Amino acid sequence: MSTDLIDAIDALVSPTGQFDILSKYEINKLARHSHGPHYQIFRNCALAVLNCGNYMDDGKELLEKYPDFDISVVPTERSVKLEVKNAPATAFVDGKMIRGIAEHLFAVLRDIIYVNSEITGDPRYDLVSAQGVTDAVFHILRNAGTFDGSRVPRLVVCWGGHSISSEEYDYTKQVGYELALRHLDICTGCGPGAMKGPMKGATIGHAKQRDRHGQYLGITEPGIIAAEAPNPIVNELVIMPDIEKRLEAFVRTGHGIIVFPGGAGTAEEILYLLGILLHEDNKDQPFPVIFTGPASAADYFIRIDQFITSTLGEAARSRYQIIVDDPPEVARKMAQGIERVRAYRKENGDAYYYNWQLKVSTEFQRPFAPTHENMRALALHKNQEPYLLAANLRRAFSGIVSGNVKDEGIRNVEKNGPYELKGDPELMRSMDTLLSSFVNQQRMKLPGKVYKPCYRIVAD
Amino acid sequence: MSTDLIDAIDALVSPTGQFDILSKYEINKLARHSHGPHYQIFRNCALAVLNCGNYMDDGKELLEKYPDFDISVVPTERSVKLEVKNAPATAFVDGKMIRGIAEHLFAVLRDIIYVNSEITGDPRYDLVSAQGVTDAVFHILRNAGTFDGSRVPRLVVCWGGHSISSEEYDYTKQVGYELALRHLDICTGCGPGAMKGPMKGATIGHAKQRDRHGQYLGITEPGIIAAEAPNPIVNELVIMPDIEKRLEAFVRTGHGIIVFPGGAGTAEEILYLLGILLHEDNKDQPFPVIFTGPASAADYFIRIDQFITSTLGEAARSRYQIIVDDPPEVARKMAQGIERVRAYRKENGDAYYYNWQLKVSTEFQRPFAPTHENMRALALHKNQEPYLLAANLRRAFSGIVSGNVKDEGIRNVEKNGPYELKGDPELMRSMDTLLSSFVNQQRMKLPGKVYKPCYRIVAD
Amino acid sequence: MSTDLIDAIDALVSPTGQFDILSKYEINKLARHSHGPHYQIFRNCALAVLNCGNYMDDGKELLEKYPDFDISVVPTERSVKLEVKNAPATAFVDGKMIRGIAEHLFAVLRDIIYVNSEITGDPRYDLVSAQGVTDAVFHILRNAGTFDGSRVPRLVVCWGGHSISSEEYDYTKQVGYELALRHLDICTGCGPGAMKGPMKGATIGHAKQRDRHGQYLGITEPGIIAAEAPNPIVNELVIMPDIEKRLEAFVRTGHGIIVFPGGAGTAEEILYLLGILLHEDNKDQPFPVIFTGPASAADYFIRIDQFITSTLGEAARSRYQIIVDDPPEVARKMAQGIERVRAYRKENGDAYYYNWQLKVSTEFQRPFAPTHENMRALALHKNQEPYLLAANLRRAFSGIVSGNVKDEGIRNVEKNGPYELKGDPELMRSMDTLLSSFVNQQRMKLPGKVYKPCYRIVAD
Amino acid sequence: MSTDLIDAIDALVSPTGQFDILSKYEINKLARHSHGPHYQIFRNCALAVLNCGNYMDDGKELLEKYPDFDISVVPTERSVKLEVKNAPATAFVDGKMIRGIAEHLFAVLRDIIYVNSEITGDPRYDLVSAQGVTDAVFHILRNAGTFDGSRVPRLVVCWGGHSISSEEYDYTKQVGYELALRHLDICTGCGPGAMKGPMKGATIGHAKQRDRHGQYLGITEPGIIAAEAPNPIVNELVIMPDIEKRLEAFVRTGHGIIVFPGGAGTAEEILYLLGILLHEDNKDQPFPVIFTGPASAADYFIRIDQFITSTLGEAARSRYQIIVDDPPEVARKMAQGIERVRAYRKENGDAYYYNWQLKVSTEFQRPFAPTHENMRALALHKNQEPYLLAANLRRAFSGIVSGNVKDEGIRNVEKNGPYELKGDPELMRSMDTLLSSFVNQQRMKLPGKVYKPCYRIVAD
Repeated sequence: MSTDLIDAIDALVSPTGQFDILSKYEINKLARHSHGPHYQIFRNCALAVLNCGNYMDDGKELLEKYPDFDISVVPTERSVKLEVKNAPATAFVDGKMIRGIAEHLFAVLRDIIYVNSEITGDPRYDLVSAQGVTDAVFHILRNAGTFDGSRVPRLVVCWGGHSISSEEYDYTKQVGYELALRHLDICTGCGPGAMKGPMKGATIGHAKQRDRHGQYLGITEPGIIAAEAPNPIVNELVIMPDIEKRLEAFVRTGHGIIVFPGGAGTAEEILYLLGILLHEDNKDQPFPVIFTGPASAADYFIRIDQFITSTLGEAARSRYQIIVDDPPEVARKMAQGIERVRAYRKENGDAYYYNWQLKVSTEFQRPFAPTHENMRALALHKNQEPYLLAANLRRAFSGIVSGNVKDEGIRNVEKNGPYELKGDPELMRSMDTLLSSFVNQQRMKLPGKVYKPCYRIVAD
Repeated sequence: MSTDLIDAIDALVSPTGQFDILSKYEINKLARHSHGPHYQIFRNCALAVLNCGNYMDDGKELLEKYPDFDISVVPTERSVKLEVKNAPATAFVDGKMIRGIAEHLFAVLRDIIYVNSEITGDPRYDLVSAQGVTDAVFHILRNAGTFDGSRVPRLVVCWGGHSISSEEYDYTKQVGYELALRHLDICTGCGPGAMKGPMKGATIGHAKQRDRHGQYLGITEPGIIAAEAPNPIVNELVIMPDIEKRLEAFVRTGHGIIVFPGGAGTAEEILYLLGILLHEDNKDQPFPVIFTGPASAADYFIRIDQFITSTLGEAARSRYQIIVDDPPEVARKMAQGIERVRAYRKENGDAYYYNWQLKVSTEFQRPFAPTHENMRALALHKNQEPYLLAANLRRAFSGIVSGNVKDEGIRNVEKNGPYELKGDPELMRSMDTLLSSFVNQQRMKLPGKVYKPCYRIVAD
Repeated sequence: MSTDLIDAIDALVSPTGQFDILSKYEINKLARHSHGPHYQIFRNCALAVLNCGNYMDDGKELLEKYPDFDISVVPTERSVKLEVKNAPATAFVDGKMIRGIAEHLFAVLRDIIYVNSEITGDPRYDLVSAQGVTDAVFHILRNAGTFDGSRVPRLVVCWGGHSISSEEYDYTKQVGYELALRHLDICTGCGPGAMKGPMKGATIGHAKQRDRHGQYLGITEPGIIAAEAPNPIVNELVIMPDIEKRLEAFVRTGHGIIVFPGGAGTAEEILYLLGILLHEDNKDQPFPVIFTGPASAADYFIRIDQFITSTLGEAARSRYQIIVDDPPEVARKMAQGIERVRAYRKENGDAYYYNWQLKVSTEFQRPFAPTHENMRALALHKNQEPYLLAANLRRAFSGIVSGNVKDEGIRNVEKNGPYELKGDPELMRSMDTLLSSFVNQQRMKLPGKVYKPCYRIVAD
Repeated sequence: MSTDLIDAIDALVSPTGQFDILSKYEINKLARHSHGPHYQIFRNCALAVLNCGNYMDDGKELLEKYPDFDISVVPTERSVKLEVKNAPATAFVDGKMIRGIAEHLFAVLRDIIYVNSEITGDPRYDLVSAQGVTDAVFHILRNAGTFDGSRVPRLVVCWGGHSISSEEYDYTKQVGYELALRHLDICTGCGPGAMKGPMKGATIGHAKQRDRHGQYLGITEPGIIAAEAPNPIVNELVIMPDIEKRLEAFVRTGHGIIVFPGGAGTAEEILYLLGILLHEDNKDQPFPVIFTGPASAADYFIRIDQFITSTLGEAARSRYQIIVDDPPEVARKMAQGIERVRAYRKENGDAYYYNWQLKVSTEFQRPFAPTHENMRALALHKNQEPYLLAANLRRAFSGIVSGNVKDEGIRNVEKNGPYELKGDPELMRSMDTLLSSFVNQQRMKLPGKVYKPCYRIVAD
């Protein structure tokens, strides 16, 4: 109780970046919108970024710790300020908010409000067609200042679990360090674990190479930000409106992708990525993908590899490389792969900062709601093009993630029992094998708890 | 014939500034809009900025010289290029377009298209209320990159005729030089004469003071740009949609105004400015206004001064200062006045880059169409608040400018005879006296031609 | 054997910084000097900076590992390159030297050669008078690019042991983090332990505060650099010619000093600092000094405090503050102290980047050679001004450090037995108590070895 | 009298550039040296740069106007200030010195003092050998901040008379304008006439091309600075110790040379340049040289061309190109020539900023004193290598310049009669013809005065 009182601070925060110069029209709109239907999302995202002020902190603190937290937009003569009440004291130093956190706070305002007033709210935007969604993702990223026309390709997306062993965590730091030594930058989902390690390692690598302007891009979305609060090294934070746009932002801004060990969520990301790369239109696109981890994680990738080969075939297998326990080699191969990306973009007159040419079909763009009905209806058989099977498998894993960790999913399962998945028996066996290995490796939930599956595989 | 062939060049021009990073959506919109209803305006403005490549040139060349000139927006993989055909060769050096001219060209694209697609074309903008117009002016200027939050007030607007004597022209250069020595920047209507002289003088002054980032802001509008093509020193060009928004842009971005000798157009600007400053809400606003010219122009300001005093009264007179033949004193007084503006803005937490507090009522915002009917209907009597009388006098002079030099106005007068102005006899006498003095001083048309009045004053 | 072969690399390194633009005269001089009498120092310092390429490395590797290492200056058409043979492979990434290490390498060239050709070798420099030495220290630092006239005071010198417990090491990181959150920079002796921790913590703090240009100044000297190789975060490395000039560089460039736990070396630094601050001429100078460590180190500071009080008196005690186990409070107090430094310098028109006014008398500037004779001759009694007693105590501890860890000192003691120290009995008792506590706390040598004292206290 | 009182100002000027951060040692040295044997040179150069504050001014004002002018170096706590007494008021704006003039003032301090204390005064410099002089020229220029390793070759040296017709002056402006449009920079002797015109034109060209960092390098020397005060556009001013080092600075920093019409001084420069280019070692060096002027100046270059061909032969003729009345063509050819210089330097690994490879033999480095004896002794015959004949002809013209306009030369001639030149009859005839044409074209003295030759040609 009393510690809460001590830990909470009220403050008025001055704007950074694009909020410096606003019109009266925009000031009014911001003040109005911030109290509108998006207030709850805005408040929760704001609390998440404020809650990462502790040096040792891993974002595991619960939002519930600050029930009285409130935030509002206060108009001033020529801009706005953000007024926070009962905010976590760790976000402040001697009463002044840490600048990086203030920047994240205004990033939240920018993306929540921008998306809703300029994208979703603007009738001129077409959010149904594939091109329309791709344009929207571009506009949100550009508005966030993510694009810099003078940068050569150097952004490596790192995926992997937020709850990994300390050996795996150290490994992600080593990889980040080796990437930065080769002048590469880091993009992650900006939470803890495999999302934080590469950035931490990269700061040391960049410092040694005197890269003062390393990019540490964090791409998140409102549903995940509380569980995976942006770590303080992130110097560009973007909050995409939903998981599908977040995934599209990763594959269009990144010039290569590294996958560290994870659980069902990581499997979802892998299936998303391979599903896209399997599309006929993308077959000539250079796109380096590396799966890597320490020796102890070798089994994880063997299982993933088997599952992909047996379900999506050799074509899928040719799009990635597995490197075990060799950070310098990972970084070297990634640097070479990105060099091919650069050459390809240059030859085609493409932008370096956004991969317009990558085909992302609507199956990967449309949000998937993991209801029992939708899960049961998934077409899990090989009688379809591999990229469509990948899309459906992606949805199945997405549902399992939801049943494991998301509020709504957990309640669904409690009420209606486990999700039922059915399909081609051989395929279902592969899936079961993979998921069981995750359970055995304690990747389905935090270590120490017994995992009770949220799904069951039923006969077709 | 053959010289035209020699002088005209076809080229593809790469984008500068904000056009570097575009979405597919924007690329399509630009390509579409540029061939739409605004094509003619776009083409004419583009030709005007291309036509100022000659060092000695004063923008007096006629647009008619390039009847085959054409411009179009060409989409590329990640942006657009501008394709020009039969463009003036003086805009190029060894086949490459001069960078400043390319920047002006893209400024035209930006402002013509932006205004029509984002401002006029966006239903969410309110262009009827005073606040709505003021917001629109702000958005156009901000989109043009005119605002820099880190700059202290230092922008001096210089008004005056585009066709002045060489003695007066040299005087405007001297004033610009002295302003720049005091670290002040220049904003003008960006044509020749009094709009070019201060900028030329200021470049030398800034060079001596090592001000590498002097601002040379040119604010124009489609109706005037052909006659007053932007001079090459302008490093920020903005094309406002109409004369009223152009005038509002001047008074809200400038921190002080200097008026050099001119004709009816300059009188229109003076009446606009005094009309605004006379408004009750503006009476405490510091706003330095100086009328100045060489000794030979003294008579001009005596006439203006008499006219203002007799029509708008002593209150109006207190808002400006007349300094004859003393450039250092003009600059000194302006610097002191702007220091008061800075102090006032700071005290009130106001922006330095845009004067939000200045009250500009709708009488000064609504476009005035100088038809014979509208001219005859003007309320030219003292039975109204001085600021309203100023608004009506402004319209009368605006009509006379149109009848003197604008295509539409000249044709109007040829067809229907001179405009008829009627009103309070004493006031009409003052106006007649002033206009006659302009005729005698050869300020109504270019020297050497006999002036045939486009108006007559009729009994009420 | 074979690993050595694998680990060693030959390379040609291009110049950075001031070596970009050289005259033929300078190129010849560099090539000549680098093979002259200073070659051995140059080579050893070079090897030390090359030997810190490993991420996890703490500079503990022995120089003996690279007996075949060689470095030479190779003239090119307009500058020089450095050719290294059999250099540690960890300094390279895919065959290219890490930029930060290349910068350190050229810093070694710069300081070893500059000092010998421009300072020591220039007859116009007076290296005898106090002013002459202070000028020399200034010139070496300025030549290294350490001074930036636009920076406000923000440099905190951190002293303490290079071999401390992991608890103490984590504490130094926490303090560095809290200092950086308050926009303070770090200067250390640039080795491991308490010299590395504050810099590591500060990188995270600066990243969170978006301070992209944090200063990480490492000041070392040829005798110590091998044992305390510059850590990779150091972005400004300066090699002073001897320990006394290194100490003077610390107190003149730093705006405040934090002392972490250490051994005899740290005691030497404390006595140097207090000896200077006790001088009459310095009594009005604000100069924040804080002794700090985790709770487990409290005893260390109690002992130090007792020793100082009993030998130098209360006046000395008033120049520092002891804060136990409270990093935010340490940083807060330091920030406040430095604010007083800023105010004082501003008031006196002093430079922010170099404390010219601080009186450093020649007793603290003259190199002390710890022979048995010199040690025995030290005047260790209270019959002198406190600042002189401090100077003599400083020398005694300097000798003990040498007898403990420096090559020459160890050989001296092996040959002639322990140093004999004699003086005022009460004072000698205090000294004995302090040194015994160091032995008990295992601060005299690396943990795990039995300490055999290199000194004994004899009756006067 | 009274106007002097009004025009003269006392002031204390704060340092710019490298004087920001000085040691006590340097402060004392500056204060001491500035009152030493070089005081008179220092004072006169200072007055010259202060005397160019008037916008319309052409540096023709006489130094005698300010007999009471005084300047001294005033030590401050961490640097120095310059105290001026009775300085020209035009150097100030509202009591504050114009920044560009303050920079020039400190450039004078820097070069007069630097040269005397660091170059001439340092026994380690060898000022006898060709290499030693070349090193000295390099050090003076580098110390002045002239070299920028990141700049590509783009510096065009413009030579020509300081007293030319207004038609010729306008032509030099046009050429400067066309050079700047091609992204070339300007270096001149920094006086009026052909030394100012190209810079004025270039400011407009650079502004149009948005080159904010155009280099306007002025290289002068104490003997000429009063007559040819640096114009305000010069943003890098260097004062070389004598005419020979000034000429060497021109040919080593410039990437090409344009010669406008002039008199005997320009002929001297042409002979210097051709003498060097004729040297065997320089025969493969690309070095664009263009002689140009308006149509009215065609005769001037015909005469020069004839003289060179008949004295130095066709080899000399092949090193330059004459272009009459075509500024764009001059600029185009110069740009092409400099592109060859760039390619050549790149291929040879040479510096872009200083032409180390150019052979300048001691005949062109040793100062020539034009006494009657030395003039008469000149070896003016073809019985020597062309480059040596060029060296001797250069000296003859140098003497004539001195007899025409320099104090000492004029007095010499008044006392001892005209200089006597003797040599090979045909060669002497050529020389006589050329000099007569200069007289006829009124290039030997200011127009309006009858020229009385300071030389006569005697039989061998």
